[in-house]
Amino acid sequence: MNKYLMELIGTFFLMLTVGLTAIAAPSGVIAPLAIGSALMIMVFAGGHISGGHYNPAVSLGVWMRGNLETKDLVPYWVSQLVGGLLAAGVVAFLKFGVPVSTLSPAVLPTLLAEFLFTFALVFVVLSTATAKGNAGNSFFGLAIGFTVMVGAFAVGDISGAAFNPAVVLGISVLGLVSWSSIWMYLLAELLAGVAAASAFQFINMEVAPVKVLTREEGGEAPHWKIKAG
Amino acid sequence: MNKYLMELIGTFFLMLTVGLTAIAAPSGVIAPLAIGSALMIMVFAGGHISGGHYNPAVSLGVWMRGNLETKDLVPYWVSQLVGGLLAAGVVAFLKFGVPVSTLSPAVLPTLLAEFLFTFALVFVVLSTATAKGNAGNSFFGLAIGFTVMVGAFAVGDISGAAFNPAVVLGISVLGLVSWSSIWMYLLAELLAGVAAASAFQFINMEVAPVKVLTREEGGEAPHWKIKAG
Amino acid sequence: MNKYLMELIGTFFLMLTVGLTAIAAPSGVIAPLAIGSALMIMVFAGGHISGGHYNPAVSLGVWMRGNLETKDLVPYWVSQLVGGLLAAGVVAFLKFGVPVSTLSPAVLPTLLAEFLFTFALVFVVLSTATAKGNAGNSFFGLAIGFTVMVGAFAVGDISGAAFNPAVVLGISVLGLVSWSSIWMYLLAELLAGVAAASAFQFINMEVAPVKVLTREEGGEAPHWKIKAG
Amino acid sequence: MNKYLMELIGTFFLMLTVGLTAIAAPSGVIAPLAIGSALMIMVFAGGHISGGHYNPAVSLGVWMRGNLETKDLVPYWVSQLVGGLLAAGVVAFLKFGVPVSTLSPAVLPTLLAEFLFTFALVFVVLSTATAKGNAGNSFFGLAIGFTVMVGAFAVGDISGAAFNPAVVLGISVLGLVSWSSIWMYLLAELLAGVAAASAFQFINMEVAPVKVLTREEGGEAPHWKIKAG
Repeated sequence: MNKYLMELIGTFFLMLTVGLTAIAAPSGVIAPLAIGSALMIMVFAGGHISGGHYNPAVSLGVWMRGNLETKDLVPYWVSQLVGGLLAAGVVAFLKFGVPVSTLSPAVLPTLLAEFLFTFALVFVVLSTATAKGNAGNSFFGLAIGFTVMVGAFAVGDISGAAFNPAVVLGISVLGLVSWSSIWMYLLAELLAGVAAASAFQFINMEVAPVKVLTREEGGEAPHWKIKAG
Repeated sequence: MNKYLMELIGTFFLMLTVGLTAIAAPSGVIAPLAIGSALMIMVFAGGHISGGHYNPAVSLGVWMRGNLETKDLVPYWVSQLVGGLLAAGVVAFLKFGVPVSTLSPAVLPTLLAEFLFTFALVFVVLSTATAKGNAGNSFFGLAIGFTVMVGAFAVGDISGAAFNPAVVLGISVLGLVSWSSIWMYLLAELLAGVAAASAFQFINMEVAPVKVLTREEGGEAPHWKIKAG
Repeated sequence: MNKYLMELIGTFFLMLTVGLTAIAAPSGVIAPLAIGSALMIMVFAGGHISGGHYNPAVSLGVWMRGNLETKDLVPYWVSQLVGGLLAAGVVAFLKFGVPVSTLSPAVLPTLLAEFLFTFALVFVVLSTATAKGNAGNSFFGLAIGFTVMVGAFAVGDISGAAFNPAVVLGISVLGLVSWSSIWMYLLAELLAGVAAASAFQFINMEVAPVKVLTREEGGEAPHWKIKAG
Repeated sequence: MNKYLMELIGTFFLMLTVGLTAIAAPSGVIAPLAIGSALMIMVFAGGHISGGHYNPAVSLGVWMRGNLETKDLVPYWVSQLVGGLLAAGVVAFLKFGVPVSTLSPAVLPTLLAEFLFTFALVFVVLSTATAKGNAGNSFFGLAIGFTVMVGAFAVGDISGAAFNPAVVLGISVLGLVSWSSIWMYLLAELLAGVAAASAFQFINMEVAPVKVLTREEGGEAPHWKIKAG
């Protein structure tokens, strides 16, 4: 239960920051820096409890890599979507009456942009928070959060830079992207999660055999405590 | 005594940065980045001495969680308020004659905004600086400081983004918020401290039994030295 | 093989970010912050696999210092150049039709600017990711990535701030710099790699005897796993 | 010798970044972020060699605290001033013909601003890089560098935000501040170094007895290697 609540809280604050800064300051430095940092702080705060996914595509990749038990996958997804929806409701209240401009992104560029940076995000999560060679590091949250910041700077004007189905749901509810575009995001992001987990396993196969590690087996890394959590 | 002096120094530099940047550049990237970083550097510098709270709402949450002794709570609050007031005096001297615009925030949005991000702040403090699963990390100051930066980007235009009764006192003295609004901040922030400590305890109960840890018991984590300090 | 693939992926995302942000926002905060952070996240993600060079001048310096085997030098270079070229192709697709302004930099200032900050980059890589006195740290990616950010702020208006032959190839293909200028970049960057490795060896000779360390010999530092990788 | 060369290189890149960004973009986000990050990367790169001071006021404070031997103090100062002067020469070449506006700061605000943030800088250096309770951390460079960034945001418009006699020399040579003002900077900064060392010793006296620690005595912290370096 505590893992699911942590995923809900983390996704709530991520989506809250997305909504409040994307409506107030859709371009420029503020939204990407704020959103990437929101993910960073919640990954640092909750990583030792739930792994700090806050993103269904990340949970998919972590599950494929063997660090999330099968019985947890759907509860994680539900917690993340509920957190995103609650945040969208708070944003709608705090920004009541503020006009919102709806993005209708082009199909191919959006598919490519969302695929590439969701791939980067899931790959960075797996590499910094589950790879044996990086056990016990203090940088995993910085690397993960700032991957989203980099993607927002790079392709924000192309796809809006969601990289996260729970965020896609939240920004669709708020009218920041059109409902008819939602399939592009979900397709690209889930494919990217699968591709990133495959690439990670191929690249790390010599050093990190895939299994669910417990704290006792894996040493100090907080992200290995999922089974024990 | 050294703990109280550290809390005074840390809160002084936090409020000094708040005052100087909020008067000079009330919106944009500078004030949130500077304020979040000011908190970060002082948490890194003083965490091993006093825990690095610099915020009465944080001290309340840390005391509830059992990492601050009861006899220290009021001296911490006094040190923080004195540090904030001294900083406001220095700001008033350095910015003498510069016109200040006073925020008169709306009640419900301010209560909600201050509650949500003070909750996030206290939750991140407890999770990164007192949770057993994160012992010995090097990221606690980055996570804590940047939580305030995220909040300032997200709700700065709604409540002014104080999240800290000592800062509320300082910006009230400087005329950045009206005295008639001060109750909203104090109410929301102290409630958030209580709520965050409760949420932290529920989420961490399986892995982090609540008690005051000493350095000898808890290992290398500087934030566990409060009893020994 | 996995090392070469990691170098390709890391250089791909670095050059992808360079291309997308340099065309969209050639000056200001965004491109330097995004590019430095892109390097940071990929160094954190891939450092334990390949050393996280993503830059032929860095590989040259790491090889001189004795932390990259001779048989790996050319495959690293090829992987980096292929990654840069692939990224340039994706940028060309995503920014199709967007006008690009070509920099024709002055010879002496460009030689000096590229030399100085490529020197700083290779020196920081060697000092934070291969020096025995810094073994096991969690800051190497932050220091390395932000060196490029600092250089981009400092000399971006002079040379365009490449500091990396794979990036030079990519931005030449995209038309961001003229082909007739490419010799300045390559000359200055490769000389800087040699100079930085020499300076590092002189400064560290008392504390870090030069040899290829394995994980077993060197302890926990991920960047010492190159031989074992 | 290697320690002195490291201090020269580090101060060179710090002052190079100060000069290039202060002339090109005297206000805004860029100069403070670039300058703070330049200090950060050089502290991370050279901390294990020389302590990473790059600032005569910091060396004064570290010497008072007992972590720099008396015979090294003047050579450190000379290395730092030479590094600053060399950088000013490079800046003068790269920015030849660019008009420079000279700051003539007011006496009392400048004394106060330089004192306060040099105090913060030296206090953060001592607390994060020499305090026993923070041994082996990975955040010292981030905390130290970003202290200068915070100060530049807070008092850049008041004093120009030098906090460093070697930088004061460099910006005086470049004409960024008037020679008749130089006494304010030197007086305030050296006093701040003394005050910060005293405050640090008072606050840390129970946990960190003052003596020169060697690596063997002090464990893994790179900043304790000064005697052995």
